[in-house]
Amino acid sequence: MIDQSTICAISTSPGLGAIAVIRLSGSQAISISDKIFASPDSSKELKDQPANTLHFGRIYKPDKQVVDEVVVAMFRAPHSFTGEDIVEISCHGSVYIQQKILELLINNGARMALPGEFTQRAFLNGKMDLSQAEAVADVIASTNAAAHKMAMNQMRGGFSKEISHLRNQMLHFTAMIELELDFSEEDVEFANRTELRNLTERIEAILRKLKNSFQLGNVIKNGIPVAIVGETNVGKSTLLNVLLNEDKAIVSEIHGTTRDVIEDVVNIHGTAFRFFDTAGIRETSDHIENLGIERSYSKLELATVVLLVVDTNNPYPVILERINKIRHRLSDNQTLIIVANKIDSGLRETIQELELLDLTDNEKIVFIAAKQKQNLDELIDLMIHAVNLESSMQEDVIVSNVRHFEILKNAHEAIIRVLSGLDSGITGDFLAQDIRECIHYMGEITGEITTHEVLGHIFKNFCIGK
Amino acid sequence: MIDQSTICAISTSPGLGAIAVIRLSGSQAISISDKIFASPDSSKELKDQPANTLHFGRIYKPDKQVVDEVVVAMFRAPHSFTGEDIVEISCHGSVYIQQKILELLINNGARMALPGEFTQRAFLNGKMDLSQAEAVADVIASTNAAAHKMAMNQMRGGFSKEISHLRNQMLHFTAMIELELDFSEEDVEFANRTELRNLTERIEAILRKLKNSFQLGNVIKNGIPVAIVGETNVGKSTLLNVLLNEDKAIVSEIHGTTRDVIEDVVNIHGTAFRFFDTAGIRETSDHIENLGIERSYSKLELATVVLLVVDTNNPYPVILERINKIRHRLSDNQTLIIVANKIDSGLRETIQELELLDLTDNEKIVFIAAKQKQNLDELIDLMIHAVNLESSMQEDVIVSNVRHFEILKNAHEAIIRVLSGLDSGITGDFLAQDIRECIHYMGEITGEITTHEVLGHIFKNFCIGK
Repeated sequence: MIDQSTICAISTSPGLGAIAVIRLSGSQAISISDKIFASPDSSKELKDQPANTLHFGRIYKPDKQVVDEVVVAMFRAPHSFTGEDIVEISCHGSVYIQQKILELLINNGARMALPGEFTQRAFLNGKMDLSQAEAVADVIASTNAAAHKMAMNQMRGGFSKEISHLRNQMLHFTAMIELELDFSEEDVEFANRTELRNLTERIEAILRKLKNSFQLGNVIKNGIPVAIVGETNVGKSTLLNVLLNEDKAIVSEIHGTTRDVIEDVVNIHGTAFRFFDTAGIRETSDHIENLGIERSYSKLELATVVLLVVDTNNPYPVILERINKIRHRLSDNQTLIIVANKIDSGLRETIQELELLDLTDNEKIVFIAAKQKQNLDELIDLMIHAVNLESSMQEDVIVSNVRHFEILKNAHEAIIRVLSGLDSGITGDFLAQDIRECIHYMGEITGEITTHEVLGHIFKNFCIGK
Repeated sequence: MIDQSTICAISTSPGLGAIAVIRLSGSQAISISDKIFASPDSSKELKDQPANTLHFGRIYKPDKQVVDEVVVAMFRAPHSFTGEDIVEISCHGSVYIQQKILELLINNGARMALPGEFTQRAFLNGKMDLSQAEAVADVIASTNAAAHKMAMNQMRGGFSKEISHLRNQMLHFTAMIELELDFSEEDVEFANRTELRNLTERIEAILRKLKNSFQLGNVIKNGIPVAIVGETNVGKSTLLNVLLNEDKAIVSEIHGTTRDVIEDVVNIHGTAFRFFDTAGIRETSDHIENLGIERSYSKLELATVVLLVVDTNNPYPVILERINKIRHRLSDNQTLIIVANKIDSGLRETIQELELLDLTDNEKIVFIAAKQKQNLDELIDLMIHAVNLESSMQEDVIVSNVRHFEILKNAHEAIIRVLSGLDSGITGDFLAQDIRECIHYMGEITGEITTHEVLGHIFKNFCIGK
């Protein structure tokens, strides 16, 4: 199944940098490098060097012209990322040089790596299971602390080791049950039904937990969906801009991300929030605001957190009506944060009444002055605690990958059938079929069962060079 | 003069990549890395590891959370790029991770490197002279074969070794002449005037050659200036677009450079050509063309190569008149390429007459059909040979740096004064003064004489991380 060719790619971010790294993996990685590399006194050949060492030297064109002075890092199979021989060439970050070195490698027998091909080889060579390999892309793409932690957990083994372990136990039982089938006329039970039920229940619980973690995983990966709602002129756009600027200060200066790219996803204290534009509040022109509140409520159900902005300059009964109106629209797993705005100029009575407002567990209230940036920290704290990622994430069992979620759903359905089969005492052959189905799905997560097509689909979204 | 702090920076191109490299240099580089790095079994400390080795492990936050799985490259002073201890951390290319690791390094005592600070330390620690250090930035910025070769030559020593050598000989003579001054009443000559004259003449010749190479160096670095001129509708814009597309095919697909950035600089077979928009031919609207040919000639003197496009559908006398008109405007160091266009539909007589046209050494003619892309290779060959970079570059003595050019001019003026001083037999003290001035300038090129201000100015234009 493993392609024997030697692959190469620029592994660092494309474009100009101080240095760039070109990675080469495969059985010919070292011999191809030796053809274009020479140490300062030309005496040293990479093939004679030990693993995990660094070598200064020059890359030469066939006409002996120097392409660059480089440092070459050597890794030897199987102790490398891919499990194959790997050579990493650190060259000057000129685009011209990067291109030229790639060209020389290709002319000497390497070929351009496909997206994710290094990681795919790591999987195929047993360096990591499939869900770990998939997490590599998530690690690279992670832009906030929570998504990063989740991806790191998955890359380091996370739930897949547990699944693999349970699957092996299940395999043992299938073997037993299938043995029973061979002796079906003698009515023996090789597979202890009580033990099988215990194992099945354990697996069911784990699959259920994993499956249910997907919503959280998705939220962490893509940002917690937040809706900002409220009447015209209560300060929704001011609040949004203030929150977005909070982000600008954190993100932009360091890695130059532009607003255009991240749109309305904001990293606040390591958690990503995705503000969706409920009533076109980014477009602050009045005629859009006037399209009415109805429209601003239409996407409410997508939100995990709803910020209802009210203006404390209004009388309390008016505000209470708004609050109640929105309360009816929210479900139990949504958090409503009532943002009592403009407290610098608000009515004292309104504020006092709001302070006494009865709140359910899913409701919070915060008093702010958005324009003056007063009490914003408190609001941010409430938003972060609304989802309580930290405590959820302690469990290390968060699924964020759609492929895994789909498989877990199928596996869970199969295991439920096994359970009810055990309840109703169906025959071993039906039982075995459901168990085998569940085993199959569990294997698809870890990659113990896979197809070329599935692999192609998984790795095509990787970046080249990984 | 050397700052003792330990500096760090992301050395690879900013943004998302498969991997990124964070570089750390200074006496604390290894101990700071040890504070955040742990090998898989936590037993290994970087400080105990030999130079030029690679180590797999993890970067941890103070709360023991894993930031990333990394490979650490160790270099020990003085055998490193900067001459100091260097640690390079290869992490996953997530912007979040890069930022986090930098943050941890800074929290543990490193500071962000200034632009070019690694290279500046390499200079200050005697790993390279100043002109070599300056070439590092040119190597990184080089986008075509010629500029790359020139920068590599300079980085590898190039002319600065020669200058340094001549300067040392000159220093010896100054010492002798100054000794004469001490014995001035006794009328002795410690410094052999004939030898001094020989040395001075050699230095003058070299400085002159270097100074004169600047024009070529500048052309290589910034692209050979090409003007496309000709009457309306002879096919100037078609030709330009065809030539630019030639480039697009080579450049864009590989490193994603956009037209907006490179404007009209085209890399053809490793040589950069800079087309300047002589008559607004990029804006193909007629009213601009109609502004007349005069305008299109106004920038002619800036061009090294002039492409005069003529339409072979016109009668020969008309074309000859155009050719003669332009001939009068060109100087000896410009090359005129007469581009006889539209040969697919042109007049047979015109083409025949043009084939018989008398040409000087600086004139070439080529017959093409731009729209059909016919004979473009021949045109490109002529353009490349017009400047003959390859043969000029054999000499390894090309100055492309404005700072060097300015200094060389000054040094050359001083040496000329020394020569005429020797001719007129002026006294030793005057002679010594001019020689010292020349020595001073030569030292400024290699960095043997420098000021903090000059260094600051040189390195501020580097990228961070180099």
